Amino acid sequence: MNDMKKLLTLGGASALGALLVASPALAQEAEAASTAVGADGQFILNTLLFLIGGFLVMWMAAGFAMLEAGLVRSKNVTMQCTKNIALYSVAGLMFWVVGYNLMYLNVDGGYLGSFSPKLIPEPSAETADAGYAAASDWFFQMVFCATAASIVSGTVAERIKIWPFIIFVVILTGFIYPIQGAWQWGGGWLAEIGFSDFAGSTLVHSVGGWAALMGAIIIGARKGKYGPNGQIHPMPGSNLPLATLGTFILWLGWFGFNGGSQLAMGTIADASAVSKIFVNTNLAAAAGAVAALILTQIMYGKVDLTMALNGALAGLVSITAEPLTPSPVMAILIGAIGGVIVVFFVPLLDKLKIDDVVGAIPVHLVAGIWGTMAVPITNGDATFYAQAVGVLSIGAFVVVVSSIVWLILKFSVGLRPSEEAEYNGLDATELGLEAYPEFGTGSQRM
Amino acid sequence: MNDMKKLLTLGGASALGALLVASPALAQEAEAASTAVGADGQFILNTLLFLIGGFLVMWMAAGFAMLEAGLVRSKNVTMQCTKNIALYSVAGLMFWVVGYNLMYLNVDGGYLGSFSPKLIPEPSAETADAGYAAASDWFFQMVFCATAASIVSGTVAERIKIWPFIIFVVILTGFIYPIQGAWQWGGGWLAEIGFSDFAGSTLVHSVGGWAALMGAIIIGARKGKYGPNGQIHPMPGSNLPLATLGTFILWLGWFGFNGGSQLAMGTIADASAVSKIFVNTNLAAAAGAVAALILTQIMYGKVDLTMALNGALAGLVSITAEPLTPSPVMAILIGAIGGVIVVFFVPLLDKLKIDDVVGAIPVHLVAGIWGTMAVPITNGDATFYAQAVGVLSIGAFVVVVSSIVWLILKFSVGLRPSEEAEYNGLDATELGLEAYPEFGTGSQRM
Amino acid sequence: MNDMKKLLTLGGASALGALLVASPALAQEAEAASTAVGADGQFILNTLLFLIGGFLVMWMAAGFAMLEAGLVRSKNVTMQCTKNIALYSVAGLMFWVVGYNLMYLNVDGGYLGSFSPKLIPEPSAETADAGYAAASDWFFQMVFCATAASIVSGTVAERIKIWPFIIFVVILTGFIYPIQGAWQWGGGWLAEIGFSDFAGSTLVHSVGGWAALMGAIIIGARKGKYGPNGQIHPMPGSNLPLATLGTFILWLGWFGFNGGSQLAMGTIADASAVSKIFVNTNLAAAAGAVAALILTQIMYGKVDLTMALNGALAGLVSITAEPLTPSPVMAILIGAIGGVIVVFFVPLLDKLKIDDVVGAIPVHLVAGIWGTMAVPITNGDATFYAQAVGVLSIGAFVVVVSSIVWLILKFSVGLRPSEEAEYNGLDATELGLEAYPEFGTGSQRM
Repeated sequence: MNDMKKLLTLGGASALGALLVASPALAQEAEAASTAVGADGQFILNTLLFLIGGFLVMWMAAGFAMLEAGLVRSKNVTMQCTKNIALYSVAGLMFWVVGYNLMYLNVDGGYLGSFSPKLIPEPSAETADAGYAAASDWFFQMVFCATAASIVSGTVAERIKIWPFIIFVVILTGFIYPIQGAWQWGGGWLAEIGFSDFAGSTLVHSVGGWAALMGAIIIGARKGKYGPNGQIHPMPGSNLPLATLGTFILWLGWFGFNGGSQLAMGTIADASAVSKIFVNTNLAAAAGAVAALILTQIMYGKVDLTMALNGALAGLVSITAEPLTPSPVMAILIGAIGGVIVVFFVPLLDKLKIDDVVGAIPVHLVAGIWGTMAVPITNGDATFYAQAVGVLSIGAFVVVVSSIVWLILKFSVGLRPSEEAEYNGLDATELGLEAYPEFGTGSQRM
Repeated sequence: MNDMKKLLTLGGASALGALLVASPALAQEAEAASTAVGADGQFILNTLLFLIGGFLVMWMAAGFAMLEAGLVRSKNVTMQCTKNIALYSVAGLMFWVVGYNLMYLNVDGGYLGSFSPKLIPEPSAETADAGYAAASDWFFQMVFCATAASIVSGTVAERIKIWPFIIFVVILTGFIYPIQGAWQWGGGWLAEIGFSDFAGSTLVHSVGGWAALMGAIIIGARKGKYGPNGQIHPMPGSNLPLATLGTFILWLGWFGFNGGSQLAMGTIADASAVSKIFVNTNLAAAAGAVAALILTQIMYGKVDLTMALNGALAGLVSITAEPLTPSPVMAILIGAIGGVIVVFFVPLLDKLKIDDVVGAIPVHLVAGIWGTMAVPITNGDATFYAQAVGVLSIGAFVVVVSSIVWLILKFSVGLRPSEEAEYNGLDATELGLEAYPEFGTGSQRM
Repeated sequence: MNDMKKLLTLGGASALGALLVASPALAQEAEAASTAVGADGQFILNTLLFLIGGFLVMWMAAGFAMLEAGLVRSKNVTMQCTKNIALYSVAGLMFWVVGYNLMYLNVDGGYLGSFSPKLIPEPSAETADAGYAAASDWFFQMVFCATAASIVSGTVAERIKIWPFIIFVVILTGFIYPIQGAWQWGGGWLAEIGFSDFAGSTLVHSVGGWAALMGAIIIGARKGKYGPNGQIHPMPGSNLPLATLGTFILWLGWFGFNGGSQLAMGTIADASAVSKIFVNTNLAAAAGAVAALILTQIMYGKVDLTMALNGALAGLVSITAEPLTPSPVMAILIGAIGGVIVVFFVPLLDKLKIDDVVGAIPVHLVAGIWGTMAVPITNGDATFYAQAVGVLSIGAFVVVVSSIVWLILKFSVGLRPSEEAEYNGLDATELGLEAYPEFGTGSQRM
């Protein structure tokens, strides 16, 4: 997502076009390009990109739901589905109530915008000058906010009560995500120092990842996951085709996530950029999956489906900070390293007794950091310094604030159900509704 | 969906533009607006909206299939899948054979159009004057017709034979849906009195809901559902992640359902309107889900996933009659009331011993009526009188005709399988094919 | 997909427009039409069609994964998911490394292009003359290549080791598919003799089908499938709602497959053509499903869900060679015959002891041949002679080359796991990861 997105609305100019305006000669050229389909045409096409990109990213909410429902044990599947439908709904409301304006309204190089609800103008009041429909932009930004919340849900699965989780999502989507988002995409201080994060390896994925990590630490591991003598007890997912489906859904949605973040489709250059982003996104995901397949074969003597799925996702996260400037070869390398990260960090977290049920921390946090730090390799406008500042400042902010929220919840309403409830499964004890009441031994088995 | 859709095809003018033509001065303004991307550009963009909207609504057929497959018991899942692939196929054929022209061809303020197949013009014969490709419009309207049939399938699940159901779908999609549709979207008598139903809270959802209600009453409840002393035996769904997936699919498809019903995307005003519809649609769904979550927590002491899913769907149905004029606050309110409706009407139907397996009647019929009656709150062109006339006339028509069809089927080929067959499950007895032959006790359990 | 696709890039002219250029008067008309939305507008809209069509076809990878995961026994579901995520990834890499240029770069009426990686131009270097973004075209062509590989995966399920399968996919997507593709879509010798295959009944579906057929023969049937005295032991799929979902996904994706193959959306004629293709595609699928429903009722006394699903898919494959010229009646007939083919060829293969686990050979190979041979019925530019030459030459090429590859694999690394491993299921023995560890008797049952 272009860093100066909110400054680029004059005359429906594309992000690329506007960046050229620095030089008068180039400005003329940009002007010629920007009128090729007319200001109205650009407005419509940019809006269309937001709407298509937006519904594809919205679909990622279903992808996370299926991935997580497939990777938890059957006794907690109803809970996982409930959390996912709840978090997408809550994100949609909170990002309207306070999130959007906090992220985008008059940030002006600072730290946050306005604590006010987002107003949606009447369609009859929109003009070509805006460059796109305000509502289409809100929709597109909202689904990114929801994505950050989806990431948390998987890590802390199987041992958190429903309402503390929902309250955390309220804070995350209404405040944590929008405030750090304001620093960069809202045109705040990070944008001013030259941080670069095209579609959100840091702003979306690592934010979800940091919040998830602090949740995993503060909530603690699932009962029985780690034995007293360092044993790690596998707790295999209950429905791997659902997890596979979830991964394919996320892969599909990512074309909207990265492609839509070009923010414009009304010029040849923008349409070509969106296309190149599609290609790089797909190559990075493919490379992440293949890297994980090969590496698990080498290391463990057999390929591992869940590693391959997470490898594809890590490839996607890795390319998200810069899906436009890499060549295909670089996109493949960046994505493949994402896949390698997953294969090494999943067991590492287990050694640290950090219980990440679906592997979201390696995928979204570690690969998100990798992708962000890799931007300067292919994008000459980015610097390792600015990238490090962005990664660390956002990381510190999210770690501190989310820890405070998790701890407040822990010592007020409490985060965990009783040990017995956890043993019997959250579906039966918290919700009274089994996900698969007729299949096998269901919640009694493990 | 604009009421006078079929009158608005001159010069590729958008629905909004054409409505302005009444006044000469405004007509000039509309003309200026309509030429901004050129008549050819408008034709292409309007067609594109129909195609994208259409494939999203087509995808809802999968959503209903998954929702219903997840909410029936495992012994009837193959049957539910068979009905859903059959109904979408039959709807596609019937709406071509007779439905479309019956709904749209020369209705002229009357009660029905022509009993003739829809002709698809050669692409080389299309002109900009039409405003969009005839085939794209057919495709978009067809998937709405299929949606109405999908609604019936869920309510009457687990106790109806396959062929009577398919025959009912033939009548519903070839005649019942198109005839009442002609009254409004075909430019019939309801359109003339000022009834307003943008995307079909009444024309699609309540039609499916009324047909489902009469089916549930005439077929009767599942054996064992209601005890002799007023007991209600829960018959929990067999696969809740599938039901969750179905809900997300429907939510995604609804952006096409409501957004596409703007019918035009070739002007700034139209593109902005589609965008505002996306936002309101999402807010209403989110509010419906959250309302159901909170209300079930208050009423029953625990949140209920199936209520949350149906709450989201009821929010979507509620906003469907008017997704454009409400402010975000109003969209949230309209959707939240939809969620409340679900929580109260699901148990109410059980008290009335009306066995609605998936909750389609509260979601599609009751919330559909609510959404239709709420239109005048935000749309100054609508009146409570005209809305009531529309709801009641369409309701009466569908109740009478669908009852006749259900009764004819009951007393000719018969609607229900034998009691023993129902007990053993329709998959084994009617189809000879189990949905999950290796999972647990399967059809033997309940 | 237009046969001369690569010749048609001047001035963003649509395929239709360019075909008119033969006559000077028509050329003028085409020119007028082609400037209606401007060359930039055409570039953007054509690119958009490739991107939307491309992500819809990408989604078909998930459809195949779900269809196959649902139709194999639970003890082989993890393996089937692994193969599908692997094949889509491998196809994406191989089609970039060598496939695309082998298929399209300087084929010039010959047999193959260049063994070089596809270069993706910088967006700033793209011009309106190209007609569309090079990257969008690569993306669109790549997902077709992946589809061919998906077809193989289903037929040879439950009895092939993972790495031999992946190696076969490397050869198929890097060489076999691109080389025969060069003959036609690359502008090779088949295109010159007038072969016609709009979206790939032969080039994609029969190619996958032939490779699958040779695999099934060379690998042999699953242990226990065919008894010594001609008995055929049913091995029912483990999760029919997943198979249903897969079919709906494929149906949805097919709008991109066929509609996107118009290759242009920047003129009224092209937008109308895409729309007509949507309608014919849907009608053919619906007719295939209904034909299979009716025929199984007549022949076996009960409808068969898996036949209905495959009937819909066969209807889709049948219309793929020519979705534009048929009238709706003809589209229905073409699709219905596809459905009939499935019902007769599925048992025929079993009589021949060719073990096609998901029915991919009837659906993709036999219906693919039918669809290709049916082109001249509605398209006056096609001849039965050229169609037969295309079907036979591509068939012979794929049969010979894929047999060689399968045989080399068989006698080097080996194709099959041990008999005991096959009996216990590939998930437990090859991968060490069960798909449904908590459901029922799982891999122990059959």
